Amino acid sequence: MDQKKLEALRKKYKDQDYHEVDDPEFQKAMLDASDMLSGIATLLDAPYRDDLEGLDIALIGVPFDSGVVHRTGARFRPRAIRDISMAVGPFNHQTRINPDSLCAIADIGDVPLHGFSLEEGIQTIEEYFHKVIDAGVIPISAGGDHSVTYPIMKAVGRDKPVGMVHIDAHCDTMGAFEDHKFHHGGPFRHAVLDGVLDPERCVQIGIRGAAEVFWEFSHESGMTVIPVQDFHNMGVDAVISKTREVIGDGPTYITFDVDGLDPVYAPGTGTPEIGGLSTADAIQLLRGLRGLNFVGGDLVEVAPAYDATINTAQVGKQMMFEILCLVAESRARR
Amino acid sequence: MDQKKLEALRKKYKDQDYHEVDDPEFQKAMLDASDMLSGIATLLDAPYRDDLEGLDIALIGVPFDSGVVHRTGARFRPRAIRDISMAVGPFNHQTRINPDSLCAIADIGDVPLHGFSLEEGIQTIEEYFHKVIDAGVIPISAGGDHSVTYPIMKAVGRDKPVGMVHIDAHCDTMGAFEDHKFHHGGPFRHAVLDGVLDPERCVQIGIRGAAEVFWEFSHESGMTVIPVQDFHNMGVDAVISKTREVIGDGPTYITFDVDGLDPVYAPGTGTPEIGGLSTADAIQLLRGLRGLNFVGGDLVEVAPAYDATINTAQVGKQMMFEILCLVAESRARR
Amino acid sequence: MDQKKLEALRKKYKDQDYHEVDDPEFQKAMLDASDMLSGIATLLDAPYRDDLEGLDIALIGVPFDSGVVHRTGARFRPRAIRDISMAVGPFNHQTRINPDSLCAIADIGDVPLHGFSLEEGIQTIEEYFHKVIDAGVIPISAGGDHSVTYPIMKAVGRDKPVGMVHIDAHCDTMGAFEDHKFHHGGPFRHAVLDGVLDPERCVQIGIRGAAEVFWEFSHESGMTVIPVQDFHNMGVDAVISKTREVIGDGPTYITFDVDGLDPVYAPGTGTPEIGGLSTADAIQLLRGLRGLNFVGGDLVEVAPAYDATINTAQVGKQMMFEILCLVAESRARR
Amino acid sequence: MDQKKLEALRKKYKDQDYHEVDDPEFQKAMLDASDMLSGIATLLDAPYRDDLEGLDIALIGVPFDSGVVHRTGARFRPRAIRDISMAVGPFNHQTRINPDSLCAIADIGDVPLHGFSLEEGIQTIEEYFHKVIDAGVIPISAGGDHSVTYPIMKAVGRDKPVGMVHIDAHCDTMGAFEDHKFHHGGPFRHAVLDGVLDPERCVQIGIRGAAEVFWEFSHESGMTVIPVQDFHNMGVDAVISKTREVIGDGPTYITFDVDGLDPVYAPGTGTPEIGGLSTADAIQLLRGLRGLNFVGGDLVEVAPAYDATINTAQVGKQMMFEILCLVAESRARR
Amino acid sequence: MDQKKLEALRKKYKDQDYHEVDDPEFQKAMLDASDMLSGIATLLDAPYRDDLEGLDIALIGVPFDSGVVHRTGARFRPRAIRDISMAVGPFNHQTRINPDSLCAIADIGDVPLHGFSLEEGIQTIEEYFHKVIDAGVIPISAGGDHSVTYPIMKAVGRDKPVGMVHIDAHCDTMGAFEDHKFHHGGPFRHAVLDGVLDPERCVQIGIRGAAEVFWEFSHESGMTVIPVQDFHNMGVDAVISKTREVIGDGPTYITFDVDGLDPVYAPGTGTPEIGGLSTADAIQLLRGLRGLNFVGGDLVEVAPAYDATINTAQVGKQMMFEILCLVAESRARR
Amino acid sequence: MDQKKLEALRKKYKDQDYHEVDDPEFQKAMLDASDMLSGIATLLDAPYRDDLEGLDIALIGVPFDSGVVHRTGARFRPRAIRDISMAVGPFNHQTRINPDSLCAIADIGDVPLHGFSLEEGIQTIEEYFHKVIDAGVIPISAGGDHSVTYPIMKAVGRDKPVGMVHIDAHCDTMGAFEDHKFHHGGPFRHAVLDGVLDPERCVQIGIRGAAEVFWEFSHESGMTVIPVQDFHNMGVDAVISKTREVIGDGPTYITFDVDGLDPVYAPGTGTPEIGGLSTADAIQLLRGLRGLNFVGGDLVEVAPAYDATINTAQVGKQMMFEILCLVAESRARR
Repeated sequence: MDQKKLEALRKKYKDQDYHEVDDPEFQKAMLDASDMLSGIATLLDAPYRDDLEGLDIALIGVPFDSGVVHRTGARFRPRAIRDISMAVGPFNHQTRINPDSLCAIADIGDVPLHGFSLEEGIQTIEEYFHKVIDAGVIPISAGGDHSVTYPIMKAVGRDKPVGMVHIDAHCDTMGAFEDHKFHHGGPFRHAVLDGVLDPERCVQIGIRGAAEVFWEFSHESGMTVIPVQDFHNMGVDAVISKTREVIGDGPTYITFDVDGLDPVYAPGTGTPEIGGLSTADAIQLLRGLRGLNFVGGDLVEVAPAYDATINTAQVGKQMMFEILCLVAESRARR
Repeated sequence: MDQKKLEALRKKYKDQDYHEVDDPEFQKAMLDASDMLSGIATLLDAPYRDDLEGLDIALIGVPFDSGVVHRTGARFRPRAIRDISMAVGPFNHQTRINPDSLCAIADIGDVPLHGFSLEEGIQTIEEYFHKVIDAGVIPISAGGDHSVTYPIMKAVGRDKPVGMVHIDAHCDTMGAFEDHKFHHGGPFRHAVLDGVLDPERCVQIGIRGAAEVFWEFSHESGMTVIPVQDFHNMGVDAVISKTREVIGDGPTYITFDVDGLDPVYAPGTGTPEIGGLSTADAIQLLRGLRGLNFVGGDLVEVAPAYDATINTAQVGKQMMFEILCLVAESRARR
Repeated sequence: MDQKKLEALRKKYKDQDYHEVDDPEFQKAMLDASDMLSGIATLLDAPYRDDLEGLDIALIGVPFDSGVVHRTGARFRPRAIRDISMAVGPFNHQTRINPDSLCAIADIGDVPLHGFSLEEGIQTIEEYFHKVIDAGVIPISAGGDHSVTYPIMKAVGRDKPVGMVHIDAHCDTMGAFEDHKFHHGGPFRHAVLDGVLDPERCVQIGIRGAAEVFWEFSHESGMTVIPVQDFHNMGVDAVISKTREVIGDGPTYITFDVDGLDPVYAPGTGTPEIGGLSTADAIQLLRGLRGLNFVGGDLVEVAPAYDATINTAQVGKQMMFEILCLVAESRARR
Repeated sequence: MDQKKLEALRKKYKDQDYHEVDDPEFQKAMLDASDMLSGIATLLDAPYRDDLEGLDIALIGVPFDSGVVHRTGARFRPRAIRDISMAVGPFNHQTRINPDSLCAIADIGDVPLHGFSLEEGIQTIEEYFHKVIDAGVIPISAGGDHSVTYPIMKAVGRDKPVGMVHIDAHCDTMGAFEDHKFHHGGPFRHAVLDGVLDPERCVQIGIRGAAEVFWEFSHESGMTVIPVQDFHNMGVDAVISKTREVIGDGPTYITFDVDGLDPVYAPGTGTPEIGGLSTADAIQLLRGLRGLNFVGGDLVEVAPAYDATINTAQVGKQMMFEILCLVAESRARR
Repeated sequence: MDQKKLEALRKKYKDQDYHEVDDPEFQKAMLDASDMLSGIATLLDAPYRDDLEGLDIALIGVPFDSGVVHRTGARFRPRAIRDISMAVGPFNHQTRINPDSLCAIADIGDVPLHGFSLEEGIQTIEEYFHKVIDAGVIPISAGGDHSVTYPIMKAVGRDKPVGMVHIDAHCDTMGAFEDHKFHHGGPFRHAVLDGVLDPERCVQIGIRGAAEVFWEFSHESGMTVIPVQDFHNMGVDAVISKTREVIGDGPTYITFDVDGLDPVYAPGTGTPEIGGLSTADAIQLLRGLRGLNFVGGDLVEVAPAYDATINTAQVGKQMMFEILCLVAESRARR
Repeated sequence: MDQKKLEALRKKYKDQDYHEVDDPEFQKAMLDASDMLSGIATLLDAPYRDDLEGLDIALIGVPFDSGVVHRTGARFRPRAIRDISMAVGPFNHQTRINPDSLCAIADIGDVPLHGFSLEEGIQTIEEYFHKVIDAGVIPISAGGDHSVTYPIMKAVGRDKPVGMVHIDAHCDTMGAFEDHKFHHGGPFRHAVLDGVLDPERCVQIGIRGAAEVFWEFSHESGMTVIPVQDFHNMGVDAVISKTREVIGDGPTYITFDVDGLDPVYAPGTGTPEIGGLSTADAIQLLRGLRGLNFVGGDLVEVAPAYDATINTAQVGKQMMFEILCLVAESRARR
């Protein structure tokens, strides 16, 4: 480069400290980020609060895995997501969303649960989320197994059935299993039958899992199912278009089961299925959904005991941040 | 959705238990699956048998790794594949094949091997598989290092040379190494020279590894070699077409070395080579080979000691299930 | 050594193969052991059977962890113990007991359980074990969390209350927790209150855990509690004497919770407590209990997901073998 | 047991829930413990506070490892100790101390540190702890590498030199290393030379490490060094007596480097040395020091990246709890 | 295949040992490779030398991580790359480059560093590399954190500013952080301002990381930034074309931060960012840069403590080999 | 302490750098140690040499595991011991031995082995060690499985049968196994029968393993067997006395199988047996053997793939250092 330009650069940047960057939002974000390594650990490094007063969005842990048939451990997930110290956010470099500048956000702790009864747990969760909705606050949760989404939807969709963007390896619309309705393979069947989820505004993405017979309710009720091989064949852009078309502009819930990703990206989960989405796929998908009307979301099925490299928790944190960006924009638009 | 449709759904599905799904094949599969977590562990959750009587397909462990130059441990692989409790099958959701409905299948245990001599082991394996072929049963094996495929082919191709679909990072057609012929880098040279493998009906997919000089015999003998960079450039569909064209309709053996996959999908193997196939690639490739005339298959080179996340064993189980689907359809067509 | 003696040794041993060792029991044991690495995996490498006919001792998996408040995963334990391929037995080099020469022993698989309800699971286990006792067979179980011992004792002690040797970090005599009686912290309270366990013939060894207030029922009911610091101070021999004195010659159950050991020996468990027994301590303790009248036993609380080195499963297998030796001698004496 | 006694037990305990245990302190502790699994993670599960108002004891993280020559990572330690969800406390079952009933205790977060300069970090820590001492609060810290104890002592011993109970594999009284004074091998040399630590009231326990030449300053200044082989030969009781004799009743600091333990108990540390104390040894040692006049303490050198089984973090939590018990009793006596 | 052709194959290949392959370069390479498993471990299995005499290319370890804000450990990286025993090279099967036949190459050990001061370390590295350049030897380094590239460039670009191919998740052109200039987030700002790096001949590939505000200097100074989403959209071939166009034929340095890859391929790094390049992408990219004029290179930010599967070290070794191939061709052309 | 004494300390030590410690041997050792973290990795950080000229003691890797029946991997052991960067030595703090000041010591690399044939490997090792003995150099080896000690003894004991200190879980005096003599369970039978090992001067310490029938040859030939329960009962001092008495002052070989230790100290081994020696026991045992006439030694059976915490390799390095201290003193006395 020519010497003059170099001199200009030197003049401007030599010994510039990050404190001198002329951007107040950046300064605030850096200040927050400087606490990243130290102090108590919270969901998405948000401030910790024990009430809902004045919040737009509450980040909530749901430490529950009584709905699991196989590898348990998702009950430790909220803690695992809190513990990840890797930097995620505070900006979204591609969409340039900075959620903290759009909404008042806090980690309000966990739903108080103990583990013995599936049915009692489901009820406790539902009651907790009704209070969040009562306060006019949008919940974004860190599960827990996927059974937690049903009682959350009971609250979120209580006034009007919601649509759903659903990333998962499984449709999760099975019936009862040995007389237990509320296991993690069936929340969306019950949400539809209870009138809180509108199946015609549902898109299920990344589905593979064992047998199409399990997908019957999804098809019968009018959900749009995009199996993983179709996802790979269509490409992310076509999946985004299809999703936007099905969802429309009604109130919409977004639920991300980490087993929708391939197990190499998210080994720490209860029922991994090979051949799933990459994280790059998933990020592009989520970023393509800006402008939809999101009224809640969750990230479920992280099981730390199977997460030797902690990649799963980091992936979970990033996906939860992407969901936060989407929800914060929706909320700010209201 | 409109209320009437919702009511119809409610009527049909409210409180439906999976026992009430009206599909006998599903009911049988679910019954089998309910044992998935408990009891003894077998290959692909098949019933355990200690004879060949009445079987169409025998699942066989070959706990042998004396052919390995580098990281050993594949001798523990049959046990590792048995141990994986993650659900694989019993249905193939994309091809809708249910092997159990097509063939009589059992795990018949392991070839009785001890580890001191490469040459003795090769002989023991060959004798064992001749008995399987004598009984008219198709073998699907869980190796072991790749040296086991040579003695298996000696039995499977004894009456007529077989063609081969071969997924691997290495051609495995090297010559002797320090006077030892039967190491895991050369089984297919010996199979061709012994007249049990027809090189003109062989496709080797995913090849990378060190040096083209090792590929000389493959080229000289007329095998079709698809290096991994060509695989990525051609795309799965073109690879399927090329493979079907080369293989034709003669009797064909399928051998899957997990190091054909990228090490992120299958770290638990002896000689990982980066830059390989994804599991999604591999699944689509295998599912694209329906209708070929498969007379045997194996999955080799899983080394559990290097499989911290157990992803490799799970991937191995899924790939072995895909092979079973292909073989079961072939067998049922006879 | 002098040349003549050397010549004599040479004459006797030169080129002797283990097949030539002149000891029929050894020959049989070696034959069994040669299958150690291959074939299906069973509890203590026993033969697999699916009925109780003619058995003296049944090895039974109880894959259940619904009684756990904290880290779950013990439901995978029977499989983990089966999978350990490290040699344990077939002889006990110190006591010279060879259980196979004393009794007919088999692995009869697992109690058929699914995971949603603590109460239902407890009932299923009890029913299963009544059938074992009906058949006159002694059960040795691989749990499972410690809640499984209560329903087992309901069967084993149904005719006459049993005494108990109990190695654990916790007394497990707590009351109900949030209205759930049968959690893993309280089985022995219920067993006493139901009249199947005689507290005055109970010894609890290695106790530490949180608070003495949890030990109240043990003290009130007359159990002998040996906290871990007393264990270390008394020494193994004194603990053995005390135990033999308390137990006497009535029918006795032995239950070994791996968290009785220090977590360095058994990290793979749900509620580890530092400062516990070493494996050398535990082995000497168990071997010192020969001659007591054992009518059943179990090994509980192995949680494979936390067992990175698989040491816990190996330790569990060894302890289960020591229990088998004790029980087999008791049974053979009848 | 006789029927009457059994009936009495039944009457008292049948269906008793833990809520009904008649012990208010227990009820409070159980209430606290019920949050153990959920919500944000704090040091020793203490409440989180961001000021010192009204506290007796502050638990403080010191995320610093710039003093390390070899394996770094101790900077993540406060988070690792917070994350451990295993129950430790709230009671000490042997000494029956319940710190929460004796003192007001809170986690007040971390010293704000970044990692580039050893010298700057040492200064930041010293300034932080002066404020804690100014407020009349006793600090118990979770390091960090051992270099953090020097600036902490600068505050704690500013009015009167303190004595020290020091458990470690190394004397940590070396001189400068390549012109850097404040590395983790030398804090106690500087504390003595600065007049805040009285060497004649210091006991260093468990010492082994490389070379006696590194111990010169300890000997010259009059510290009592108990190498690990002497520890094993003397036994815990004699070490306790010797320590009590040397320490007397002056103000005393207690510093516990986890590498004082054998690496099997605490692999997650920067400079492990085999042949160290067991956790049972360490617990008995600490419990034997009741009644000394403790004015501060710390636990240092946990490096989570090397802690595959998380045993080290659990051990660290337990040892920090034992230190809290000692300090809380001292504080309550004032 | 027909019998005649088979006979010809048999004649040529039956019992051929690899010693008989008629290719002297192969014979030499195999000889070298036979030492792969044994003896001391060196970078890319090169001979170890302690001087620069007669060398064309020196492989150099830079065990330094004092520039890291977050997870440290890259100081152990040179050792980790040396330790990987997996075969990489000696041939490049796709480009057919054999570096050993083109240049005299040796591992000359590590820059002598200790860890306390960022600023001192930077100076030591610069002095070391000036000596390498003085000797007319091209350096290829194994870092260390990315802060090491700045002092290396001070030497490599001292006579003429170099261009740069830079694969990374981060632009690494930040300003000072709390008054410390030389941290691992800013080496290329300083290299430009010092006139040793020509920003107009720089391409930064795979960028994602937190916030575009960090990318300001890259944009202002005229660097070409290819964020990871553009990389995925453009495809490898277009990225290669763009890179060749920007770089031209001037002297060029290549620096590969393993966090440019997705964390599933390289979990063992300090600041992983999901959504990165695959190893297949990276290999094709590097192989597409043949013919550029490379005058040095490095591979940085491998942190072995986070590399449970050792995949990261293996990936690092492969990428370092690809860089060696590029540099060796450049050197040979001079 | 009084002010005057403090002032004297200050005067002497304030700002003393380790360079100023007045002890030339220490200065040399520190210089060597400063390379510990960087550069190539060698056995016990000794200089690397490729000839025997002028050496007193050669450290030699024997990467061989073809004698193993079960978990292989010991072939990677020499590399694992080299890789351990934890400081061991250069001084022995208890015995104050500094081997480097007594003898000329170097790492001379590995015996050149490939893995296919047990018999060929045994022969290659024997030939290699004859050359070492021819040169008048004492070998200390890092195995490999225990089968390597037989061919080493063939060289070391060729002129006069040696005595043996043998720490192990197994006697390793079995006969042939399926016609293979030289497996890792029988080296000492063959060494005795070949007249290179004097059984009456052999002590086998820590023995447990499966069955006493395997110990027959040890008893018959007159070896002194100390089973692990006797070791624990006798205490270390009595074991030392007994060993010194049996060994006397003839030439003696010392062989340390890491499975003699309890698996918590050394999980990374092929055939772990619980209930073994602690590292503190083993260190005191070895240090108690000073003054015996050692003419060679080895450390065997480290299998890195099972060594998740790398504790085993560190323990191995320490034990190899203790052996070096013993041998160096013996050599210096000649």
